[in-house]
This record gives sequence, C-alpha cells and structure tokens, in this order.
Amino acid sequence: MKQLNKKIVFFISDGTGITAETFAHSVLAQFEDEYVFTQIREPFINTEEKAIKVANKINELAKTDIPLAFSTLINVNIANHIKNSNCVFIDLLEPFVSLISNKLNVKPSIKQGLSHSNTHNKNYQNRIEAINFTLEHDDGQFIYALDNAQIILIGVSRSAKTPTSLYLAMQYGIKVANYPLTPEDFKACALPNALKPYKNKLFGLSIDPYRLSEIRNERLPNSEYASIINCKNEVKNAEFLMKINNIPFLNITNKSIEEVTSTLLDIFDIHN
Amino acid sequence: MKQLNKKIVFFISDGTGITAETFAHSVLAQFEDEYVFTQIREPFINTEEKAIKVANKINELAKTDIPLAFSTLINVNIANHIKNSNCVFIDLLEPFVSLISNKLNVKPSIKQGLSHSNTHNKNYQNRIEAINFTLEHDDGQFIYALDNAQIILIGVSRSAKTPTSLYLAMQYGIKVANYPLTPEDFKACALPNALKPYKNKLFGLSIDPYRLSEIRNERLPNSEYASIINCKNEVKNAEFLMKINNIPFLNITNKSIEEVTSTLLDIFDIHN
Repeated sequence: MKQLNKKIVFFISDGTGITAETFAHSVLAQFEDEYVFTQIREPFINTEEKAIKVANKINELAKTDIPLAFSTLINVNIANHIKNSNCVFIDLLEPFVSLISNKLNVKPSIKQGLSHSNTHNKNYQNRIEAINFTLEHDDGQFIYALDNAQIILIGVSRSAKTPTSLYLAMQYGIKVANYPLTPEDFKACALPNALKPYKNKLFGLSIDPYRLSEIRNERLPNSEYASIINCKNEVKNAEFLMKINNIPFLNITNKSIEEVTSTLLDIFDIHN
Repeated sequence: MKQLNKKIVFFISDGTGITAETFAHSVLAQFEDEYVFTQIREPFINTEEKAIKVANKINELAKTDIPLAFSTLINVNIANHIKNSNCVFIDLLEPFVSLISNKLNVKPSIKQGLSHSNTHNKNYQNRIEAINFTLEHDDGQFIYALDNAQIILIGVSRSAKTPTSLYLAMQYGIKVANYPLTPEDFKACALPNALKPYKNKLFGLSIDPYRLSEIRNERLPNSEYASIINCKNEVKNAEFLMKINNIPFLNITNKSIEEVTSTLLDIFDIHN
C-alpha cells in the first residue's frame, strides 16, 4: 500500500465552522490519494484573544510541519492573527464576498457567525418542525396527518427511507413521511389504503436485493426476512406495485443519502 | 420596509451540489440586507451536453438580469460552458484546489462528484449506522446498549435532545443516545439508574422555561405539562440534578443545533 503523507488541517470560524468544514472536505478530497489529514476544529473564535491562542497553537505545530488553516473569520483584525501565523492560510469567505460585492456594487454586512446562529428565523424553525414531523411520520406512523407531508417515501423495509427522510427534513426543512411496503400489500397487489389519496406525493426507494439481504442480515442474521429469496421477492413486488401505479422510484444501492435527496428536490421541484 | 433587490443564483455541480449550496449560503448571507436570492439547483452536471443546457438557461434569464452562478464543476471543459455564459461565475473549488496543489506541490485527483458519491467508504457507513443507533436510542429507548453510545444527552422533555442527537449522527457519524429527565427523577433527586454507569458520557441540555413553555404549548396547549410553573420547576430541578452530579450542561435557548453540536464536539474532543 502507498504510504500517505500526513498533514494537520485547522478549521477556524467565528461561528460553528460546520459549513466551512463540510465544504473544505470537498476541497481536501482532491488530495486524498496523497495525504491523510488530521483535523483540528476551532469554532467560536470571535475575539482577538482567542485568535492569538489559535495562532500560538499553529506556530507550535508548524515546528514539525506547516499546517493548512481554513478560515471563515469575517473580522479582519481577528483573521490577521491567523494569517500571520506559520500556516497555509486559506480564506474561504473573503474572496467570494469581495467578488460579489464588486459585481453587485453593494457592501457586505460583515456579520459574524451568520450561517448557523439565528434560531429565530423562519428557515430554522421550519427545519425543527420538519424534523419533528418526519420522526412522527416514520415507518407508517400517524397516517392521519399525511395531508401535511410534502413527500411520502415508500419502499420495502431497510431501503433507506428513514435516513433519507431525516436528511431532507434536517437540511431543507421538508416534511417527509415514509411508509413501508410489506408482504400484505404485495398479496393484495395494491398500495396501502392510507397512501391512495396521496399518489402525487409518493416516491419509491428501491435497492439491489443482494445488498438488501446484507443489510437485513446485520439486523436479523439468518432470518427468513433477510434471506436472499425473500429480498428478491419483496424488491420485485415493490417495483411492480410502483410501476403499475405510476410512482417514480430510484434504485438507491450505490447512492448516498445526499444523492437521493438531490434527485428528490429536482423531481418535486422544491426550491427552499 | 426596505425594498430588497432580486437576484437569481445558480448552484451548479457535477455531484449533488449540497455541500456547495450550503457553503454558498454563508457567502450570500453577507448580502441579505440588500438582496433576496432565488435559487436554481443544477446537480449532476457531468457532461458537456448538460452544461450547455444550463448555459442556455442562464443566457435566457440574463436578458432580464445577470444571475450569479456558483460552480463546483471540476472538469474544465464542462465548467467552461458555464464560465462563458452570461453570468457572474463563481468557482468554489478551483482556487482552493490550485492553492493547496501549489503549496503542497502535489497534483489534485480531479474526480467528479467526490464529496457525496462514495457510499462504500467507512465514513459513510458510520453515518448510517450512527443514524440507526441514535433513532433506536431516542428518548430513553433500548437502554441496554448505552455502552456503545459515544454521547448521552439528557434534559427535560422538549429541550432539543432529539434533533441535536440526529444532527451529530447524520453529520459526524457519532452514536448519540438521549434520555429524558422526568418528574420521577426529580422526586428521587437522582439520575435515572440506567444512566449512572455512564456519567462521563452525559451532557445536559437546558432551556429557558418561558421558551420551553411556548414549545410545549404548541404540542399540548393549556396543559399542566406546558404551564410556565411546571416548566420553571422542571428546568430548575434538572439543572440542580446536573450540578450535583457534575454533569456539564448548556442552555440551548438561543442556540442552533449546529452551535450545540460544535460545542459538544469540542467538549468530548471528537475529531472524526
């Protein structure tokens, strides 16, 4: 195996730093053939005093190897302490803020910790409400409030309905219910009655039966439920039900929750 | 009220675009005093043909007003179609990838859709496992497996334990259980027995009683449970229990899930 180089990476923010860190991972992903990165988080760096402490830490570590430092510090005086320390300083916000400011000919507001600090705004409240809704409407529960669902995911047990629903709620504030398709539905060769009034909200998740069998075996090893024969039957029947009812569906076997989410936002044309 | 300018913003990615979009929101947040932004998502733009379609859409809209276009397209040929369209082109990845490439003297791997496409890696599997664990250990369920929890959140009913737990699981793959503190515990003036062996994993969420009463009133209007007197008592008793047991806690009233998460990562010194 190839020996990877090591590199320390700081994520420095005046807020949570979560957005910056997630984004920086996309940048670092381009170098993972060569490097293994050790992360150090420095959130809530909103005073010069705190910045000086971080700068000292960087300088100490730099004696061995100069670290990378991703920063979303918006205050210039605070940022300068990091910039002047012995690091590869990577300012994630300033270049874009300057570019847009110039192009639109408008001044930025220069507020710290903007992206995750406002718990009173509508958007944040929507997300919390959507998480609660989605938990209450997980796995076919509380079917009498499906009227309020924006999307209803259907599929066989363990086809990633719950994590996908929660991701949509948490990231986008979308109210997602999910409902299992079970052997009873396949016997009746019909959608569950509770779902029939909501055909235009339904979306199916399907999965490769071999992968499904693997996942189910982790839960209930050597069960009929997890057997490959049963998984093949359930998946075949579920896809058949979706097809005859004109319900769009997606095979999620090699897709991440984020990829499924992105497809769903597109199909349901959701822009929030 | 101040009249805000309107601006269309494209998010164009060869993958889901979710990371880029979330990050771009932090950039745009600096201009929200002046502008209201309409978002158009263009995920999975992984061929020149698809890029040309997006470029045409941009040119059409630009007849009214030139849009902003945030791009994380890593393939130059694909990106050029957008770059040459009538937009303010904002390349989110390339400047950083170039900078790091130069400083570390190593070539980037130039893989498309990297950040959310690999469902087979350990990190992704951890996240899915953590989501399942967290759902199974929500609200004091399945207490016999608390051994495997990395963090156990405690607090009165409706103190944001569940959304915080789920966010930690989903974003960081951390196994978080949560356990309610109830009037029975306050009467006994002791932690629930199930939690006693895990003192070093416990973290408390507290909340302003007036806000708690508001939240509970949305669920059960005019109930004893939601009354301000009861909320005051519960919060006071919960904080007392935490203090005498030396359990760190945080008042989450004006904090977002992300802010609480960031604090928890710091306190438990979690680096994944």
